[in-house]
Amino acid sequence: MRYHANELIAAKRDGQTLSPAAIAWFVDGYTTGRVPDYQMSAMCMAIYFRGMDDIETAALLEAMLRSGDEVRWHDAPWRDGPLPTADKHSTGGVGDKISIPLAPAVAACGVAVPMISGRGLGHTGGTLDKLESIPGPGVDGQGGGFQTRLGVDVLKQLTAELGVCLIGQTDRICPADKKMYALRDASGTVPSIPLITASIMSKKLAEGVASLVLDVKVGSGAFMKTPEDARTLARALVGAGTEAGRKVTAFLSAMDRPLGTHVGNALEVAESIELLRGAGPADSRAVVCRLGGEMLRLSGRADSLQDGEARIGRALDDGSALQVFRRVVQAQGGDPRVCDAPLEVLPSAPVTRTVKAERDGVLSRCDALAVGLAAVHLGAGRQRAEDSIDPAVGFVFARQVGEEVTAGAPLVTIHAANDEDAAHAEQELRAAMTISDADTPSARLPLWIDEVHGADTSRGAT
Amino acid sequence: MRYHANELIAAKRDGQTLSPAAIAWFVDGYTTGRVPDYQMSAMCMAIYFRGMDDIETAALLEAMLRSGDEVRWHDAPWRDGPLPTADKHSTGGVGDKISIPLAPAVAACGVAVPMISGRGLGHTGGTLDKLESIPGPGVDGQGGGFQTRLGVDVLKQLTAELGVCLIGQTDRICPADKKMYALRDASGTVPSIPLITASIMSKKLAEGVASLVLDVKVGSGAFMKTPEDARTLARALVGAGTEAGRKVTAFLSAMDRPLGTHVGNALEVAESIELLRGAGPADSRAVVCRLGGEMLRLSGRADSLQDGEARIGRALDDGSALQVFRRVVQAQGGDPRVCDAPLEVLPSAPVTRTVKAERDGVLSRCDALAVGLAAVHLGAGRQRAEDSIDPAVGFVFARQVGEEVTAGAPLVTIHAANDEDAAHAEQELRAAMTISDADTPSARLPLWIDEVHGADTSRGAT
Repeated sequence: MRYHANELIAAKRDGQTLSPAAIAWFVDGYTTGRVPDYQMSAMCMAIYFRGMDDIETAALLEAMLRSGDEVRWHDAPWRDGPLPTADKHSTGGVGDKISIPLAPAVAACGVAVPMISGRGLGHTGGTLDKLESIPGPGVDGQGGGFQTRLGVDVLKQLTAELGVCLIGQTDRICPADKKMYALRDASGTVPSIPLITASIMSKKLAEGVASLVLDVKVGSGAFMKTPEDARTLARALVGAGTEAGRKVTAFLSAMDRPLGTHVGNALEVAESIELLRGAGPADSRAVVCRLGGEMLRLSGRADSLQDGEARIGRALDDGSALQVFRRVVQAQGGDPRVCDAPLEVLPSAPVTRTVKAERDGVLSRCDALAVGLAAVHLGAGRQRAEDSIDPAVGFVFARQVGEEVTAGAPLVTIHAANDEDAAHAEQELRAAMTISDADTPSARLPLWIDEVHGADTSRGAT
Repeated sequence: MRYHANELIAAKRDGQTLSPAAIAWFVDGYTTGRVPDYQMSAMCMAIYFRGMDDIETAALLEAMLRSGDEVRWHDAPWRDGPLPTADKHSTGGVGDKISIPLAPAVAACGVAVPMISGRGLGHTGGTLDKLESIPGPGVDGQGGGFQTRLGVDVLKQLTAELGVCLIGQTDRICPADKKMYALRDASGTVPSIPLITASIMSKKLAEGVASLVLDVKVGSGAFMKTPEDARTLARALVGAGTEAGRKVTAFLSAMDRPLGTHVGNALEVAESIELLRGAGPADSRAVVCRLGGEMLRLSGRADSLQDGEARIGRALDDGSALQVFRRVVQAQGGDPRVCDAPLEVLPSAPVTRTVKAERDGVLSRCDALAVGLAAVHLGAGRQRAEDSIDPAVGFVFARQVGEEVTAGAPLVTIHAANDEDAAHAEQELRAAMTISDADTPSARLPLWIDEVHGADTSRGAT
């Protein structure tokens, strides 16, 4: 069959269903350069409007997966015999540093986590940017701090040795997705459920993990603004993963306000280390325990979600998770002393400015999108893929949504490169937050909104 | 105001209205290269789905017009004082060679026609390709035949001298449209009324003509498949032209079957010369007379459409239109003997094959799209903008839709490069045509379907 790219675009534009062969031809053509950017962006916009059915979405995912390698774990150099493999993926939000404490905690409980993460884009942060804020000697002793640009061979080796490795996408993992994601980000075609599903799941399937836990964020700071949209995405993700023979659970969790207290790259590493010491904000810890607990359950290392949560909690409290993280930092070129004295090792911003409450009451609103955008404006995130970031800047909230505040007491500390940025951020943060009377009912989302289980992974007793 | 291209795309995608300043920023950015192809194609697809209101469409048109020069006629080197200026535009079809006889006929009646035409794309032919099939010495005596790659200065000079000049788009006329049209053609974003309106009208406004007659084609061989869609486009075009201070009329005419008897580049020039000799098929002549007559009426050179039609008819019959065409051919580098012996001067195909009727009856269907595609497959048209064409190939219909046919009598002659192409074309043409019993009611569109007049150019008595 001979295809013409513009005819396939027009067919999708007109609401026709594309055959799996046509989708494969289009994606292969894009990966190899035969289909140019402008045809793929028009196709993505047509998909945004017309959607894709399950068969089309599966064909897209399959084509993206086949554009690169799939990691195999049977031949990894396991230290003490093969471990079950699992990963976690979040659809992205503000203050979402969960992967950093979670991966070592799960590894400390006997499940290997070969995690391929992304960078921050738009108002959302990215795990790679956060990890790269850790200074250190680099893997070859030539400096550069924590390294995430490591290949699949290193991923296999470190995962087999330490139980965890945290890297970025490589040229061999879903190159079609890498190219398409950058294009979608620049062409207004990110928020499409079939495109998101194929993008996320192709990468996670390429990791070769047996189990996958998804954190689908809901609210102003998430791609999915409503529980309904998030549920639709969660079902599509779980369906695609289950279809591919993986154990998958998706949780819907709140992203109407930032997660935890710290927003910004080095600052989120600092909060992560707090969590790995058994401390840290309650909401962040709850998310680490639940997502990690479900990874243990799906991997057969916990009898129930509740049992899994308890095991993760113990790994955070007894130092075993921190010990794994210390080894990972060292192995990936960071300075392991960050685990003992994060504030001394991590980069710090030259200017701090504390925003104080103007009245007594309760912090009833702290808008995640507005906080995320304020962080981008400070330099913590990117407006375009090629922008560089400032690892030190960000916010540390002294109060989280729902907590009482007192006039004159600190609400949040801004870490900025200069006074002007800090003053601008204060304006933005003040507009993002509302202090109400203490008896005002809260409009915030519950931390846990819903969950979606794969057909063959029915939930154990909790 | 600082804009981000992806945010503007997302705004249009979400159904928001773009400000004129934002549209101008986007179009200017695309023309200068700051906005890449893949953002413009995604924007065009979003516009396809979300549309544009009148203010947005006018802003798009204005931005495209301002990307280049606008021709001024007051300082043209008129031979005998300034003439009124007018042009005609067809939305494109199969066998639509009307511009070639019309422009000289209108000029013979005292209205100057500085016509900037396009090339064939898809199944539709283009005036430039047809004219370039005329061999000759070229404008500089170095060969190359009829030249259409002439600049605005030549357009002004020849129009002032001969009353007509037929050229292609130049780098100085609407470069934004030139770039956008090629992109839209390759990205499935052609059939959008605001995009078509801005594309057509920006070029025609750039010509600086006072009056404009539009032929909006309807049917399988046209972009607009239904009278309703064509009427919507016609209203948008007339509205935009009237808003810009031009006198504009749009006619809706049939393109469910080919126009006239000849399809193919040199073959359509041959039919055009028949028409300029006062002969040729009745439907083609009727279209020349009506569109040309309305150009005379809008320009004040006819009291009514009927009067204008009669004047055009006389110019075709008395040789004055052919005389103008002869001068144009000579001035633009073609061999003027084409007017006397077209079959000897024009290129001819090595193979001809006559398709004969298999039964008695009436030719009840001759599908314009299928005929147009068959012509493209013969080499008469382009699948992609960079394809070259064969000027000699095409079809000459011995019978038009609605005419009686006799078993064994010729229906159409195929002009092809080789026997294989001719045999393939015969299959396609047989599938495109239906012979029915003589008493079967015809399902074909009437030649004239509707007309739309500009607010301030109310139609004279006919």
